Amino acid sequence: MPSSSLVRVACIQMEPRFGDTSANVEHSLGLIAKAADKGATLIVLPELANTGYVFETREEAFALAESIPDGPTCRAWAGIAAERGLHIVAGITEREGASLYNSAVVIGPQGHIGTYRKMHLWGNENLFFEPGNNGFPVFHTAIGRIGVAICYDGWFPETYRLQALQGADIVCVPTNWVPIPGQAQGREAMANILAMAAAHSNSLYIACADRIGTERGQPFEGQSLIVSHTGWPAAGPASRTGEEIVSAEIDLGAARRDRNWNAFNQVLRDRRTDVYAEMLGSDIPRGWY
Amino acid sequence: MPSSSLVRVACIQMEPRFGDTSANVEHSLGLIAKAADKGATLIVLPELANTGYVFETREEAFALAESIPDGPTCRAWAGIAAERGLHIVAGITEREGASLYNSAVVIGPQGHIGTYRKMHLWGNENLFFEPGNNGFPVFHTAIGRIGVAICYDGWFPETYRLQALQGADIVCVPTNWVPIPGQAQGREAMANILAMAAAHSNSLYIACADRIGTERGQPFEGQSLIVSHTGWPAAGPASRTGEEIVSAEIDLGAARRDRNWNAFNQVLRDRRTDVYAEMLGSDIPRGWY
Repeated sequence: MPSSSLVRVACIQMEPRFGDTSANVEHSLGLIAKAADKGATLIVLPELANTGYVFETREEAFALAESIPDGPTCRAWAGIAAERGLHIVAGITEREGASLYNSAVVIGPQGHIGTYRKMHLWGNENLFFEPGNNGFPVFHTAIGRIGVAICYDGWFPETYRLQALQGADIVCVPTNWVPIPGQAQGREAMANILAMAAAHSNSLYIACADRIGTERGQPFEGQSLIVSHTGWPAAGPASRTGEEIVSAEIDLGAARRDRNWNAFNQVLRDRRTDVYAEMLGSDIPRGWY
Repeated sequence: MPSSSLVRVACIQMEPRFGDTSANVEHSLGLIAKAADKGATLIVLPELANTGYVFETREEAFALAESIPDGPTCRAWAGIAAERGLHIVAGITEREGASLYNSAVVIGPQGHIGTYRKMHLWGNENLFFEPGNNGFPVFHTAIGRIGVAICYDGWFPETYRLQALQGADIVCVPTNWVPIPGQAQGREAMANILAMAAAHSNSLYIACADRIGTERGQPFEGQSLIVSHTGWPAAGPASRTGEEIVSAEIDLGAARRDRNWNAFNQVLRDRRTDVYAEMLGSDIPRGWY
């Protein structure tokens, strides 16, 4: 196994304090440094890690949002990435002109690589943010091909599929998972199960960094985890309530190498595109669902 | 909650004996009767339940295959469906002309309703069967809209998605799950996790009837289960090794009723078809995957 494919990834499970952007970013830098001290070179932070999540008005969200890559949050993360030789994927409240996006930046040692804008908005996010308008980009980096999804995006198998089909080795998931009705006590979170299924059925790694705590009455679920391309957790899930760094050394090359499951089957090539393409178009009457 | 949506579904986990078609069908009739005695009106049997699975030559498969609906297996199942007022979804080795299919029949009290032909063939099935050529039909029946998937079809989220988009309330899954490398001891099967993720992210029921036993050296995994539209098991998983009837009373109407998760989100309507349609076409270069 070539050692060049080995990457230590760390998901930082933390608790941003609403509206306290500079303190949140400062706190994230400390945790990033801690993960880097333990050898991590790919680091994932939660959704909207700089601002917190529960906006009450659009004006409030607007005031807290920053431009990318020249805003202070993005510059701070780029600083530590350069200093420590890191790749960072981190959730940020983005402003472009008068439009806001629930975004995640991908930053490397040389600076800002790209931005993903959440495609599937959840609940009141629809009051503050525009839906993502850049599709599902896969970022080619020095360490491998990195895709990004944010929270509710993970409820759509299309999210992972479209990134796998573009060659993603790993999808990094900044998230703010909220409780789901019917979640059984003592069972892993449904969000974890969705990530496991997606990793297995696409043969790619998935690294989910969740937040913790309760903000303006909204509890979050923690349970950050790193899923191997086999579908089984490589690290985590973390607790529901504590700040933690979930970390694993993974072989990104295995995501590509292990897709041939036997003489006949390669999970991405076995897709029946002849039928999907026709049926996933717009000709299924909306009345059915 | 209107009682008219309530259906008792039963998954029959059984062990067909290779090549012993009439005994297998007879055995299935006994188990179907037992499930019906307990109130089940929708009954799922495993993949290739009439013949067994591990063919060694195409001639062998050809000799065991039957036509639908006039072959003896289909007629036997239609007989008990009429007698007991049942809907049955059952795996069968189908012959049409010189072509063989890994199929599942959907049978109601009035007889044969339709046939699903497995779309994604696994391993040596490629030596014996044609890939399914009828897409992903959803059958409208007296008790609700029923979709079908067979085993490896469940590794493709597209399978469930395309049936959900056509209004399926439940997908019945005749299956012959085989062990997966990396399956952790003491953990539920990855096949179960895939079914849970698909049920949750499509808000539909999934009823998986697996076989047990070892046939010509190939072990099977059992662990049949019925997953609620919430993603959590309504019954099962069954054991890995025993014949069992896994049964639950489910409210098929809830699959449709509960898709509105909040004021903004309905899991099937939130799909970003604007982006999927473009990206799921054939223009992604194959070189990536």
